[in-house]
Amino acid sequence: MSFESKLKSAVSKCGFLCLGLDTEIEKLPVPFSKTPDSILKFNLEMIALSSNLVAAFKPNLAFYEVLGKTGWEILKKTCEAVPKDKIIILDGKRGDIGNTARMYARAMFNELGGDALTVNPYLGEDSLAPFTENPDKGAYLLCLTSNSGAESFQLFPPADPLYLRVARRAAEWNKNKNIGLVVGATHPQQLAFVREAAAELPFLIPGVGAQGGSLSDAIRYGTMGGKIPSLVNLSRSVLYASSGSDYKEKAQAELQKVKSEIDSLLTAKVTN
Amino acid sequence: MSFESKLKSAVSKCGFLCLGLDTEIEKLPVPFSKTPDSILKFNLEMIALSSNLVAAFKPNLAFYEVLGKTGWEILKKTCEAVPKDKIIILDGKRGDIGNTARMYARAMFNELGGDALTVNPYLGEDSLAPFTENPDKGAYLLCLTSNSGAESFQLFPPADPLYLRVARRAAEWNKNKNIGLVVGATHPQQLAFVREAAAELPFLIPGVGAQGGSLSDAIRYGTMGGKIPSLVNLSRSVLYASSGSDYKEKAQAELQKVKSEIDSLLTAKVTN
Repeated sequence: MSFESKLKSAVSKCGFLCLGLDTEIEKLPVPFSKTPDSILKFNLEMIALSSNLVAAFKPNLAFYEVLGKTGWEILKKTCEAVPKDKIIILDGKRGDIGNTARMYARAMFNELGGDALTVNPYLGEDSLAPFTENPDKGAYLLCLTSNSGAESFQLFPPADPLYLRVARRAAEWNKNKNIGLVVGATHPQQLAFVREAAAELPFLIPGVGAQGGSLSDAIRYGTMGGKIPSLVNLSRSVLYASSGSDYKEKAQAELQKVKSEIDSLLTAKVTN
Repeated sequence: MSFESKLKSAVSKCGFLCLGLDTEIEKLPVPFSKTPDSILKFNLEMIALSSNLVAAFKPNLAFYEVLGKTGWEILKKTCEAVPKDKIIILDGKRGDIGNTARMYARAMFNELGGDALTVNPYLGEDSLAPFTENPDKGAYLLCLTSNSGAESFQLFPPADPLYLRVARRAAEWNKNKNIGLVVGATHPQQLAFVREAAAELPFLIPGVGAQGGSLSDAIRYGTMGGKIPSLVNLSRSVLYASSGSDYKEKAQAELQKVKSEIDSLLTAKVTN
């Protein structure tokens, strides 16, 4: 199945949320022992409790690499536990010259079984091709990130900033309908500019939970009234919703709350 | 020891070469069986034969990630085999928001024991801080890469291109004297512009071997007459110098040849 079809189907079944698996030993709820095994156990619980509430899961590779080969094994088992109709986005922000990018593509798509990955566009067109040549796999290009450092390079030059150039080129390169853009919800005005530059591309939108970005603008420009299968990512606000033994109920409640807010925003849009 | 001191000392002992360990099972010389174990065996041989000829080793992470947890173990053992007075540059071109970058820093510096890493600057200042806050560890920021896709974003806008903005900001951020720049030898003219923008920063220069860049310009603008400890990286032209049983002699000869060329370039410079 093409990435485009799988993404549309996952979103139409369960909505626009993505759960980021940025799992840290130190932050696990009290019931867990502080060992690497606990990360896998916690991930499997998070996947099980959220399967009706999210379209996608996004493991953040740094949190697994820090544990060396054990972490890599936990990451693989986590991916294996994701239901087959969900999108797995491997968030490693990789990007390298062609022959190296080809290796990353094999690592992410074949070895780990991801449906998509996040890619840093700095190295340009030939560095992207290995990630997008198979229409069954997808690539989300960093466009405008949610952190303060986005100002260092992405917003320059003001007259025609880098992030908009990335958005325009991504739209041109999207022959296989498998390219998306990472656009932080912490930049509501710029979400509109990115949508203008890339009318049809799905967004992956971080910054709504712990970072305080605008859900309303994320949904407005991300989905264009529910028509585009963009994903709003939540990580820490769900994973660490409670440090006590009610962590599962609290995580589920947080997802349910944001899902309801999205439903309301989309209903309001239809009614207006 | 500070990264600055260790780099200077390694270069003053053994010269300006770095050996890239982009080791691929399929390309190993005939005497090797096509198994992951062979990669470690080959790496250990390459490290042993080149220790008097190079200042640094640069494993390319993609080539290990593609083998999953086995690859991660090979990478760690490879790093452990590098002599303590050499620089280990982990080439993963990582880059993420602060809390994630902190995890990558721990993975690269603590778990794998690298001295330095390559970093993609797209996410800006706060994404770099976790890699540069310890003066004993270094970070090479991608500036102008050696591939054709460098034209997509790095060279825009022509009046004040992204790569020069990166070079200027890197020079400003270099409080701990542990930031370098990746500048491909395939752009000889731009090497001079980067040197102008960042007068003191060491470069990590790919593109001289298989990619055909200019060694003469790499040495001229990279080292400024031998004064700056920049590194010229060779990978495929050394690792795969021969597919036969003479692969070690041929690899050593290739390193020796380029090292002699560099010595001649520096001597000529002194004489002129």
